[in-house]
Amino acid sequence: MSSQTDPIGIFDSGIGGLTIAKSIVEAMPGEDIVYYGDTAHLPYGDKSPATITACSLRITDLLLQKNCKMIVIACNSASTAAFEAVRAHVGDRAIVMNVVDPLVASLAVHKEPHKMGLIGTRQTVRSMVYDQKIQALYPHITLVSHPTNLLASAIEEFGRNGVTDSLLSEYLSHPDLKDIQSLILACTHYPLLKDKINTFFDQKVCIIDPSDVVSASVHQTLQEHGLHNLGSMGTRHFHVSDYTDSFEKGARMFFGHTLHLEHLALE
Amino acid sequence: MSSQTDPIGIFDSGIGGLTIAKSIVEAMPGEDIVYYGDTAHLPYGDKSPATITACSLRITDLLLQKNCKMIVIACNSASTAAFEAVRAHVGDRAIVMNVVDPLVASLAVHKEPHKMGLIGTRQTVRSMVYDQKIQALYPHITLVSHPTNLLASAIEEFGRNGVTDSLLSEYLSHPDLKDIQSLILACTHYPLLKDKINTFFDQKVCIIDPSDVVSASVHQTLQEHGLHNLGSMGTRHFHVSDYTDSFEKGARMFFGHTLHLEHLALE
Repeated sequence: MSSQTDPIGIFDSGIGGLTIAKSIVEAMPGEDIVYYGDTAHLPYGDKSPATITACSLRITDLLLQKNCKMIVIACNSASTAAFEAVRAHVGDRAIVMNVVDPLVASLAVHKEPHKMGLIGTRQTVRSMVYDQKIQALYPHITLVSHPTNLLASAIEEFGRNGVTDSLLSEYLSHPDLKDIQSLILACTHYPLLKDKINTFFDQKVCIIDPSDVVSASVHQTLQEHGLHNLGSMGTRHFHVSDYTDSFEKGARMFFGHTLHLEHLALE
Repeated sequence: MSSQTDPIGIFDSGIGGLTIAKSIVEAMPGEDIVYYGDTAHLPYGDKSPATITACSLRITDLLLQKNCKMIVIACNSASTAAFEAVRAHVGDRAIVMNVVDPLVASLAVHKEPHKMGLIGTRQTVRSMVYDQKIQALYPHITLVSHPTNLLASAIEEFGRNGVTDSLLSEYLSHPDLKDIQSLILACTHYPLLKDKINTFFDQKVCIIDPSDVVSASVHQTLQEHGLHNLGSMGTRHFHVSDYTDSFEKGARMFFGHTLHLEHLALE
């Protein structure tokens, strides 16, 4: 039986999910946070659903051992590949959230016929999870999904420099994305490029950034279950399955300020 | 005790090591080959030496179970991070080869003072293994190593198109590589870009591609140990720790023709 003071577990293939963690920490400062980045297997976007699911289940067990009341899959590739398996595995031991459903729910504001683009990893696009959920709820939205596989690694490697720009332009120039009216950023890394994406589309495309709707949904779900910790300052632990200086340095970029990554083997 | 008819084991973080496997198969068609690509953990270049070593040892055990007479570490990141550990672990059960030593030995032809560049992953460059070995043997060579971390992923993602070109130009334009007379391609993926690198440097830089010197060294070592299989047509098995269509498609690019990847879990 979970209690209000149990931590929220958040996991991602690496450090990009820290954009979600940051939004959760800002919205719910009293919550204890346990973050797990599977840097030994990153990136997930190119790997098979079977491998992503196997990794996700092992991380889930680790977060359950830490008594997490909620597990947030802060990664689109894992949300599309492994959510059902994680939820089935967890049962009633904790609440499981993904990044897809809060975003899909937020699209209810688009009432008119609409051509919407989506960029994400190969796994996220191939899974068709966004396509199926959006088609079922909003038949007036035409979704075109385009894989932008290397973009997350480029952001980790170069930040927001010229190489990332030329990759981004190459991907966004694809004919599939012509005439879109809005664009879903279906990877936790992409909000870092929001300004550049806006500039590319000459401010004419509405950018849909899931990070804040995910934390709002986490907040609401905890309240509904009477599990929100109203304390003033929670503890934060950030674990990775592989530690390097580059991950520690990159983590600052996603979390907004310095944090300490602790190595904790998955296997 | 190994025998001539035992297979050669070759491993890499993924499918790039197939450039080495191809060269070995062409030079020694009678040898049985067991290839293992650790696609579940790829790329190695960003990961820590500890994680690369742990993965390499598990792959080594798997290849020893298949009675390999020789284990070829066909990956620069693993050769620089894990060679000594693999060799110590294997003991006299098999011969262990890496991709660094054959290349370093081949540099003996450069007798004059020389500014030599090297491009490779972050792990390969940070390890300083090339720097130390070259400094010890060839003090007249000044080596400048520059990490080109995203290049291998770009080759897998885009092949040889415009995005790979702009990344390559960005990397090769770095001031460190100014005025080099030769360039070591210290990653099994890079030989695919040899023509483009030649064009970038206006044919004025000598490109040092290790794939053929590694297979020549394998050949010579097997002969020295009386372990070369002179049969006419060996068997070939290609295993990966994670299977996707993209890996299968990419494998053709590196091996030159179609091959079948079999999934074989590492863990």
